[in-house]
Amino acid sequence: MSLIVTGSIGIDTIHAPTGNADSVLGGSAIYFAAAASFWSPVRLVGAVGEDFPADLEKPFHAFDIDLEGLEKRAGSKTFRWTGKYLDNMNDRETLSVELNVLAEDLPPVPEAYRDSKYVFLANTHPGGQIALRSQFPEAKLVVADTMDLWIETERALLTDLLKQIDGLVLNDSEAFLLTEKRNPVTAGKHILDMGPTFVVIKKGEHGALLVHKDGVAALPAYPAENVVDPTGAGDTFGGGMMGYLAATGDTSIGGLVKAMAAGTVVASFNIEKFSLERLLDLKRPDIDTRLNEYADMLAVV
Amino acid sequence: MSLIVTGSIGIDTIHAPTGNADSVLGGSAIYFAAAASFWSPVRLVGAVGEDFPADLEKPFHAFDIDLEGLEKRAGSKTFRWTGKYLDNMNDRETLSVELNVLAEDLPPVPEAYRDSKYVFLANTHPGGQIALRSQFPEAKLVVADTMDLWIETERALLTDLLKQIDGLVLNDSEAFLLTEKRNPVTAGKHILDMGPTFVVIKKGEHGALLVHKDGVAALPAYPAENVVDPTGAGDTFGGGMMGYLAATGDTSIGGLVKAMAAGTVVASFNIEKFSLERLLDLKRPDIDTRLNEYADMLAVV
Repeated sequence: MSLIVTGSIGIDTIHAPTGNADSVLGGSAIYFAAAASFWSPVRLVGAVGEDFPADLEKPFHAFDIDLEGLEKRAGSKTFRWTGKYLDNMNDRETLSVELNVLAEDLPPVPEAYRDSKYVFLANTHPGGQIALRSQFPEAKLVVADTMDLWIETERALLTDLLKQIDGLVLNDSEAFLLTEKRNPVTAGKHILDMGPTFVVIKKGEHGALLVHKDGVAALPAYPAENVVDPTGAGDTFGGGMMGYLAATGDTSIGGLVKAMAAGTVVASFNIEKFSLERLLDLKRPDIDTRLNEYADMLAVV
Repeated sequence: MSLIVTGSIGIDTIHAPTGNADSVLGGSAIYFAAAASFWSPVRLVGAVGEDFPADLEKPFHAFDIDLEGLEKRAGSKTFRWTGKYLDNMNDRETLSVELNVLAEDLPPVPEAYRDSKYVFLANTHPGGQIALRSQFPEAKLVVADTMDLWIETERALLTDLLKQIDGLVLNDSEAFLLTEKRNPVTAGKHILDMGPTFVVIKKGEHGALLVHKDGVAALPAYPAENVVDPTGAGDTFGGGMMGYLAATGDTSIGGLVKAMAAGTVVASFNIEKFSLERLLDLKRPDIDTRLNEYADMLAVV
């Protein structure tokens, strides 16, 4: 069924122990959409500036992404992010951020997108997420991502948002920040009390935890040795998860675990090359093969 | 088949945000043996001092543990450890250690134990582990645990030990210390080059990683909310794993993953109460029920 993602599109410059990438395609929405498209067509709502280079647009066309909601805004500049990964390839420093078009008005949602059933509100200001949420009156499942900045500066709006969504995706450090509960299961349950019916707590190389109104589950990350660029790992995880859910419609705890496994596997490919390079040469059978390996690995009885 | 563990038996005093326990039974060998005994009878080699209180001996008799190798050494004092868990319930500080009998001669191995097939050399000086290893000429599977102290101070002896064992169990920080490889899969492969056919890297609340000559696997921890005392979590994990292996004889990668799942589940019970309290009122069907829940949780395709 119809899946939509709203979020950032940007130009990233990445420094890592494994190499550097200068002015490559990035942003939460494009990573999400590319990953989700292996399971379901995706509608994308996002804005770039008039400076957006034509060659960075090519990847948009390589996946099953509906681009009617992609705005190229005259007089504006594209979001830019420069970051550096530390030796452990998990921690990173932001060296510079230029919000540019992200600090302006939200991109308009095309009329044709109003019937979207599966909605992913990628990380942005929670006021913007609430405004976007209201434009999908027929939504069957709404999931949002957030970050430490909004937990610290916009808690009231974030609390409002939590009452209007079915699922929240966030990092373990953010779950602690939001709830002040050290135990991630306890933190997840506190978030459920704030509104959603499930919370996915992302732990990077340590996998992810699902706290659902019907129970709790944990999955490991795919044990990856070839980690070149972790940028977009969380967004591709979310994309695989939502793409899978849009394809199956199964939001039970068991359905969500399977969706998280899809996200885990597509994210494990994404980190093997810089930017979207690995997803661009990835085929669905490659994903299914690794998903089966992952399932075999987890056959514990 | 016959399983033996060599290691410490001690008197622990534990301070935690969840409460305190004063002078309770502890030590790697007793946690290991109690956990393993749910799958296989266990022989225990360890020493206590003449100060060892009679009421702390009771738990030894509550499990299927052969105590012929338990020495009560006249003129010696029992190993004592006092530790404090921090608010996150994962990190801990050692407040005091009295090695006492652990700093003396190794306990003798009874003649009747020489035919042991499954051998676990719990953490102690690697010279002692090598001496103990040599006393089990019919061993089918020898696994050792180690710690940061020996990696830093006794690397040559530890390197010798690695050539004489089939498996090594250690924490992720210790794997990094031993190999200087940040990626745990890479670290595990480097350790395989040093001798063992498999390495289990323990990550506490984040689960465990298996690097085996035939492949790699990762398992999450059981998502536990009721964490009262993490003492012995690693030892009960090792005990469950080895007890399961001794019962099945399957040391393939798939067999090891199932053994690690058994260890994961018994460890998840152990942390629910102080010392060995939870294991003392645990029955095998309780373990099997949770193991099935854990398996269901990991059904990803």
